[in-house]
Amino acid sequence: MKIDTLIINGKVFNSFNQTFEKKDIAIKDGKIERVDSDLSYDAKTTIDAKGKYLIPGLIDSHMHIESSMTGPANFGSVAVKFGTTTVVADAHEITNVAGLQGLKDFMNQSSVIDTFYAIPSSVPSTRTDMETTGGVIGLSEVSELLKDKRIICLGEAMNFKGIVDEPDSLIRQIIRLCQNKRPTMPLEGHCPKYSGEDLAKFVASGITSDHTFQTPETMLERINNGMYIQFQKKSLSKENMQAIVKHNLYEYAGFVTDDVMADDLVNGHLNLIVKEAIKLGLPAEKAIYMTTFTPARRMSLNDRGVIAPGRVADLIALSDLNEFKIDQVFKSGVPVEELPPKRADFPKYLQTTVHAKKITKEDLILKNSKEKVTANIIAVNEHGTFTKHEKITLNVLDGRVDWQSAGLSLLIVQERYGKNGNMSFGLVKNTLNKSGAVGTTWAHDHHNLMVMGTNLDDIVKVQHQLIDQQGGYIVAEDGEITANVPLNVGGIISSEPVDILAMKLKKVREAMNRLGYVNFNEIMSFSTLSLLVSQELKISDVGMFDVKTQEKIPLFD
Amino acid sequence: MKIDTLIINGKVFNSFNQTFEKKDIAIKDGKIERVDSDLSYDAKTTIDAKGKYLIPGLIDSHMHIESSMTGPANFGSVAVKFGTTTVVADAHEITNVAGLQGLKDFMNQSSVIDTFYAIPSSVPSTRTDMETTGGVIGLSEVSELLKDKRIICLGEAMNFKGIVDEPDSLIRQIIRLCQNKRPTMPLEGHCPKYSGEDLAKFVASGITSDHTFQTPETMLERINNGMYIQFQKKSLSKENMQAIVKHNLYEYAGFVTDDVMADDLVNGHLNLIVKEAIKLGLPAEKAIYMTTFTPARRMSLNDRGVIAPGRVADLIALSDLNEFKIDQVFKSGVPVEELPPKRADFPKYLQTTVHAKKITKEDLILKNSKEKVTANIIAVNEHGTFTKHEKITLNVLDGRVDWQSAGLSLLIVQERYGKNGNMSFGLVKNTLNKSGAVGTTWAHDHHNLMVMGTNLDDIVKVQHQLIDQQGGYIVAEDGEITANVPLNVGGIISSEPVDILAMKLKKVREAMNRLGYVNFNEIMSFSTLSLLVSQELKISDVGMFDVKTQEKIPLFD
Repeated sequence: MKIDTLIINGKVFNSFNQTFEKKDIAIKDGKIERVDSDLSYDAKTTIDAKGKYLIPGLIDSHMHIESSMTGPANFGSVAVKFGTTTVVADAHEITNVAGLQGLKDFMNQSSVIDTFYAIPSSVPSTRTDMETTGGVIGLSEVSELLKDKRIICLGEAMNFKGIVDEPDSLIRQIIRLCQNKRPTMPLEGHCPKYSGEDLAKFVASGITSDHTFQTPETMLERINNGMYIQFQKKSLSKENMQAIVKHNLYEYAGFVTDDVMADDLVNGHLNLIVKEAIKLGLPAEKAIYMTTFTPARRMSLNDRGVIAPGRVADLIALSDLNEFKIDQVFKSGVPVEELPPKRADFPKYLQTTVHAKKITKEDLILKNSKEKVTANIIAVNEHGTFTKHEKITLNVLDGRVDWQSAGLSLLIVQERYGKNGNMSFGLVKNTLNKSGAVGTTWAHDHHNLMVMGTNLDDIVKVQHQLIDQQGGYIVAEDGEITANVPLNVGGIISSEPVDILAMKLKKVREAMNRLGYVNFNEIMSFSTLSLLVSQELKISDVGMFDVKTQEKIPLFD
Repeated sequence: MKIDTLIINGKVFNSFNQTFEKKDIAIKDGKIERVDSDLSYDAKTTIDAKGKYLIPGLIDSHMHIESSMTGPANFGSVAVKFGTTTVVADAHEITNVAGLQGLKDFMNQSSVIDTFYAIPSSVPSTRTDMETTGGVIGLSEVSELLKDKRIICLGEAMNFKGIVDEPDSLIRQIIRLCQNKRPTMPLEGHCPKYSGEDLAKFVASGITSDHTFQTPETMLERINNGMYIQFQKKSLSKENMQAIVKHNLYEYAGFVTDDVMADDLVNGHLNLIVKEAIKLGLPAEKAIYMTTFTPARRMSLNDRGVIAPGRVADLIALSDLNEFKIDQVFKSGVPVEELPPKRADFPKYLQTTVHAKKITKEDLILKNSKEKVTANIIAVNEHGTFTKHEKITLNVLDGRVDWQSAGLSLLIVQERYGKNGNMSFGLVKNTLNKSGAVGTTWAHDHHNLMVMGTNLDDIVKVQHQLIDQQGGYIVAEDGEITANVPLNVGGIISSEPVDILAMKLKKVREAMNRLGYVNFNEIMSFSTLSLLVSQELKISDVGMFDVKTQEKIPLFD
């Protein structure tokens, strides 16, 4: 029998006993034809693995491609080098911007890796009266997506209140629709902190996974409640890895990336999570199993996740097991360096999505007739994306609120889909301490136009530039633009290759740092000031909201 | 919060660590709402489990309802008492009789248990030029079935030659169609004996399960090749159970029933397999896991198989764990004795499916002009369903072959779908040794009209009666009908409740024994004389066939 590729002398991973065996692998038409000792086939190519470890390609069962500010094609060409050969993408960012059509056009961009999709379950993240988005996902959109075979799960449901307290909320209706049309499809969730009866209610809705921060306790309670746990970077700890081993949780938990910034992506992807898990004490064989077989089973991807006949020939050759040192990657039997590149362009309409009017300094003056005002302030936290809601008294000079001398920054969020022209104002603490501004159209999750600055000229400059280039991430200092990442696709995606994007993104961080914006991840910190499902006081084009109560908070009491 | 049922004081099975924990179970709307210690809810009904073991309902991932000569409603009402709450049925018998419409009408009969279906992949079992069936499953039928959400897998593919040697055989086209339309749907197989390259080729086609006879060697080779093993009764052995434990195969193998005769069904179902597995040394917790969680996962039935929130409240209360003594069963939270009965009737057209002309003794005379003839004989084996192909010389008296004095039985298979009026003859050894006949329309898999006897009068009598009552299993002795199971639905299904059917079936066995038909399962032995995929010499309405070569064998050389 004639085959395409024969890989000999490899230590082949046997998923079923989680050991390595000296075997050969026969590959035909992109699939594994046979795995056995001393195979002799008439092969077009024979590869000597020279005793390296051969494992299945990595499967990322929960991630967002747009978190890397890129599209499927450019993302895949980078991720595949790090051994990620299959992803299940929840593309809810592009859906917030461009709705069902935008999602379809995103899904239709081909990639060198296999990209399956989740139904974005929370677009907008809250309610249309709390934030204006370009697109909305309702029951009719879900119905249409359920007909698409590339859709294999419901994306992370996050509206806890709607899930546990409102039997007829949109998310509950979406869940019922999915259960009715696709009874065997997994429903994914975002379930931070909840426990006891709250957790049980959440799972009782039909949602059976969680990828938020875990401790041994939260993880065990979730698994005992029938949840599948997706560990991301922030959940990697000695304690968690020990708990996995102690309680044999290899079937009920796997590893995912969730969000990877472009300037991190150039350094690695899911492979870094596996490497870290091993370093933290998880046996390499188990870490591999939990990033191949287990996620494949979670997503019913029966044609992959193991090195066995009939499975997609996605393989990684490791020169060092415990260091998880990748020597070579094969996608559908082809060495990745030989894969033909994919076109990364998007339809024209997705490149003109910033429909906001240019502002003047006049528009930015906070007029007030009082002598003093009590302002509701967004206090940025140096770690993470949560903020604090503080109150501060400000003077009013010549009818204008003086926030400058209080060391605050002015924040504007402007509706940019041409729907209502909303513009809201906020005042932010612990951010910029120099003269400048930072602005973006990559403002989670509604992605309206957001600019924050210490002087009006720079705010106006950045706002104009964002409109002129149809989106991006821009920093200005003393009247000069010092860093600029164009995100001309939907205002959230770069047309450039990831390595170039990464360099420019690094410059944005540096420019923000120079202005005094200091955070573990300054870009995420700034971009989530507009995320209405992340504590405590956040802002959309509609205004500021107390996230817990979903109550609208005025700028001045 | 108001719930329907609260079960307290139970030892609840935790699938995730395979142990029992003293917990309470809250049930609402047929689903499990919460599982925890000391729950206090406002419950309509509170049940004290008095320390009994509570486990999930059993899931049978491979079975044929028609093997019990009954339909979904009557089958379910019996099986549920034994704890089987979910089945995945491959209804290929009714499909052989009545095609896609017959299958749909079968699927539309509701049941107290959850009945999912497989796409019958081999109808007819061989080729339309080897056997005449009432229905045929081709690509268009498969396409239509793929749209039905009750269909969750491709049923056992058995045409080994077509699967491994013919890239464009119908079964390979069906597999590709399923992979294309439903990439996450499991494809089930029937893969006896094959090993090495043959086995790898079989799995490489995409089929990933086998439920045929297993030994530790065959099972390990299959699992290492990426197959899921379904153990049925005949594969239960100390050695296999030990191998499961030694190699930790709990995730890769489960238990199924495949075929259960009606007179066995009244004594138990999947519960008997679990009980036997435990008796053979498999820890009860593992046996339960492999009959609940593992099959649920194999079939992507994410809403069941564990006792956790959101899952269907299918529960079994055991008073003795290792004896697997069932005390009570709950289906969707309701004690089975309180379940409303389901209508068991079928459409009229399915009750008139025997369209064959009545024969006379004249039609049965084997005329021949020679003095002696060499006959190709079907030699029945006392064990199992395989036969041997033997040759024997017979005298010809007055132009009539004298098979009677050689101690043989005459067998006729008559096409009964009104398609071509085929009638074939066979001579059978090691069956009847008294004056009588046995006949049926339950003749695997084509289910034509088959009668075998030692005298022509009884053969004619049985044939006429089968036509008059539109199908059944009938025995005649010395001109009198001594046993009769009416199978008036499609000629293979009884309209009567299973307990009555079972009694009548027992009488058929006794009557066959009185005539000298001795076999481990005389009904299966006789009914599979017409099964063209079971070794060695078998017969259809078209004639006798060598099963291996699929070559047609004449009655006389």
